[in-house]
Amino acid sequence: MDLKPTKPLSGFIELLPAAQRFVDECAARMQKVLRECGFSMLDLPAIERAEVLTDKDNWDEIETQIFLFQKGDTKMGLRYDGTVGLSRFVAGHLNDLTFPFRASQFSKRYRGERAQRGRYREFYQMDMDIMGINTLSTNYDAEIISVIQRTLNSVSEFIGDNFVRIGSRPFWDALFNWLEMTADQKKAVFVLIDKKDKMVPEEFVAGIADTLNNPEKEQVIHSVFENGYAGLQNKTADLDAAIAELNSFMQTLNLMGVKNAQIDLSVTRGLAYYTGLVFEFGLTKYPELGTAAGGGRYADLAGKFSKTKIIGVGAAIGFSRIFVALIEAGKIDLSRFESATDVAVLVMGDENLAYAMSVLNALRDAGVASVAYLDTDKKFKNQIEYADKIMAKYSMIIGETEVKDKVVALKDMASGEQQSISLADAIKLVKQVA
Amino acid sequence: MDLKPTKPLSGFIELLPAAQRFVDECAARMQKVLRECGFSMLDLPAIERAEVLTDKDNWDEIETQIFLFQKGDTKMGLRYDGTVGLSRFVAGHLNDLTFPFRASQFSKRYRGERAQRGRYREFYQMDMDIMGINTLSTNYDAEIISVIQRTLNSVSEFIGDNFVRIGSRPFWDALFNWLEMTADQKKAVFVLIDKKDKMVPEEFVAGIADTLNNPEKEQVIHSVFENGYAGLQNKTADLDAAIAELNSFMQTLNLMGVKNAQIDLSVTRGLAYYTGLVFEFGLTKYPELGTAAGGGRYADLAGKFSKTKIIGVGAAIGFSRIFVALIEAGKIDLSRFESATDVAVLVMGDENLAYAMSVLNALRDAGVASVAYLDTDKKFKNQIEYADKIMAKYSMIIGETEVKDKVVALKDMASGEQQSISLADAIKLVKQVA
Repeated sequence: MDLKPTKPLSGFIELLPAAQRFVDECAARMQKVLRECGFSMLDLPAIERAEVLTDKDNWDEIETQIFLFQKGDTKMGLRYDGTVGLSRFVAGHLNDLTFPFRASQFSKRYRGERAQRGRYREFYQMDMDIMGINTLSTNYDAEIISVIQRTLNSVSEFIGDNFVRIGSRPFWDALFNWLEMTADQKKAVFVLIDKKDKMVPEEFVAGIADTLNNPEKEQVIHSVFENGYAGLQNKTADLDAAIAELNSFMQTLNLMGVKNAQIDLSVTRGLAYYTGLVFEFGLTKYPELGTAAGGGRYADLAGKFSKTKIIGVGAAIGFSRIFVALIEAGKIDLSRFESATDVAVLVMGDENLAYAMSVLNALRDAGVASVAYLDTDKKFKNQIEYADKIMAKYSMIIGETEVKDKVVALKDMASGEQQSISLADAIKLVKQVA
Repeated sequence: MDLKPTKPLSGFIELLPAAQRFVDECAARMQKVLRECGFSMLDLPAIERAEVLTDKDNWDEIETQIFLFQKGDTKMGLRYDGTVGLSRFVAGHLNDLTFPFRASQFSKRYRGERAQRGRYREFYQMDMDIMGINTLSTNYDAEIISVIQRTLNSVSEFIGDNFVRIGSRPFWDALFNWLEMTADQKKAVFVLIDKKDKMVPEEFVAGIADTLNNPEKEQVIHSVFENGYAGLQNKTADLDAAIAELNSFMQTLNLMGVKNAQIDLSVTRGLAYYTGLVFEFGLTKYPELGTAAGGGRYADLAGKFSKTKIIGVGAAIGFSRIFVALIEAGKIDLSRFESATDVAVLVMGDENLAYAMSVLNALRDAGVASVAYLDTDKKFKNQIEYADKIMAKYSMIIGETEVKDKVVALKDMASGEQQSISLADAIKLVKQVA
């Protein structure tokens, strides 16, 4: 019989134990921050009705990117982000939740497109959203940014510092209106701005020229990337309001203790549903990773599901994008995550099993991470090799003498030193070190 | 526009925040036990190649139960258990892992069949497996049972006591051989035994009679359910060996401190790949939940993937089956999980935001779970109502006076008492109580 393939499908992640311990540690720290910041963890289904995942008018575009399938008469698919499920859930539980409602989701997302380098088809994102009914101060936008920074800071020993760039959808809307652009021009220019980073400069300039065909207007667009909003004040009330919002927002970020924040109007967050301020985090040390987290405000989060107006500000941290990518690039020293346990109990013969088990139980009752080597007929050499390979800090060797004297032979696996010691003292010693 | 449905698909679970905090707490405690017992957490893809999930010869049977789909030329599907992915992973990483290898997976599983009451189409199981190359003492089977019991005990305040029943595949094999049953008879009787609990007694008796058509042999089968293996010793060497293994195994369980264990030969774990001892856990307080955890030994875990013989003993805890079912049955007092945070900072006007934010940051820096109400234009009544609804233990009210005097107005939400107090003292007080 032919053997079946042991590699996962391309674009799917699976980590060896040490790497998994590292990402689990990062996730645990980050989720602790989120819980302490009052976010409720939600765990929503990975499968949604197809009609929930997508609208009829973007079906063709999105169908290639979603894993879709049918069971009986029901078309369904795997979620590609956290926002669709969240808006459905919140719209369905308006009376069960207290608003402003802070929610976080740490879950797998799926993209059906063919995997490219650095693009996964199954990946984790860590979302955080604050939602209000009819009203939601932009102070919450600032809080989301502050919370993301706290979250990323909790793992800064691995990923270094972070910075955030703030953009504004209303700014561009107001600017486009002032320039009296047509609806088609607005859309085309916005797409160009969104893709600007992936183009050579000449391509962008040519694209804007083709669309606007008006050197004066073109120059205004380009000036934003050179000088920000300088020189664009006192043009229209909307433009002034957008600029004032940005300035006041930067002050609030400062009040909240956010570091390394700056206005960058080239940040637009693509064509997604954002309607207000938008932002993107990057890692100072790893610019090659691109966007580490991003988000913004949406004026009507759940319009598809409810007539109640739910205003949201939310963001997603690209968890796999950051941590799996850093592991793959060899940027994480995994040595401190190699050890599966603190103590390995080695049992020299089945006649010593009873005592060895009482030792193991005492260790586990004391909360000491411990395993036993239970193929008791194996030679000492095999057993100590096992303890060495799993990087146990200590071995407790249980043979005839130890059973008779009611002690353990405690071996420090790093130094090789071994001592005969009572179990109680051994546990004390191990707990001090571990 | 018609509104889209807000309910999840039938058979899919989504919990409100308090219930989610409860299951998260249970999962965290159980995973802590598993880590302390030296299990490496694995997080494998939810999607596998179809050929990995199923064999050609059981395709029709299983296809109705699996979510299958195709992308490009690749047929794939969602995992229905943890064992398939684990055996693929281990077979692919023989040189990267140390054996005996202890692995645990806490992950979502998927069943495509139509949802019935208490059957989910997306659910969590918590697996634990110990795997050895060519050899693996049955002491590890006992360890798995001991670890499951530790894991369940870590949440006993919610689910009460547990018990475990031990069965043996080799016992039935040896008994069937002694009775000189044909291969067809063996299979038919085994299926009947497996389904016995779901039949009325007459149905089972008739089924056995139809299959064996030999009153003497039929009586031997029935005697096992009445008297266990009593009277079946000294028949054949295989039968004696199976009985001896069971007896010795019960002694080892005792050594490992396992409570409430008994031999029950009606436990067979269905037609799955088990080849040795098998076991099932139940909850003393909630027999209606059925099997809380179950598992056993397989002589050749990864034969489909590798020529290396990997022996495994493993089990799955029906995490959603236990915890979601208990919530749905109203058996869990969720009141202690209702609170989203310890402190709500209430901000009386935007002019006090700067000081309020310094208070919020100090709280969060001190690890106090805290939120702020940031719609600063809302009246005190609205803000205190919010603090009450999210079940904050304290409010810190920040108005003009507090800013001027550099204090906070700390309100105990249960007693209603309020005091003016320095931030440092307030943090101390809150940390003592929270």
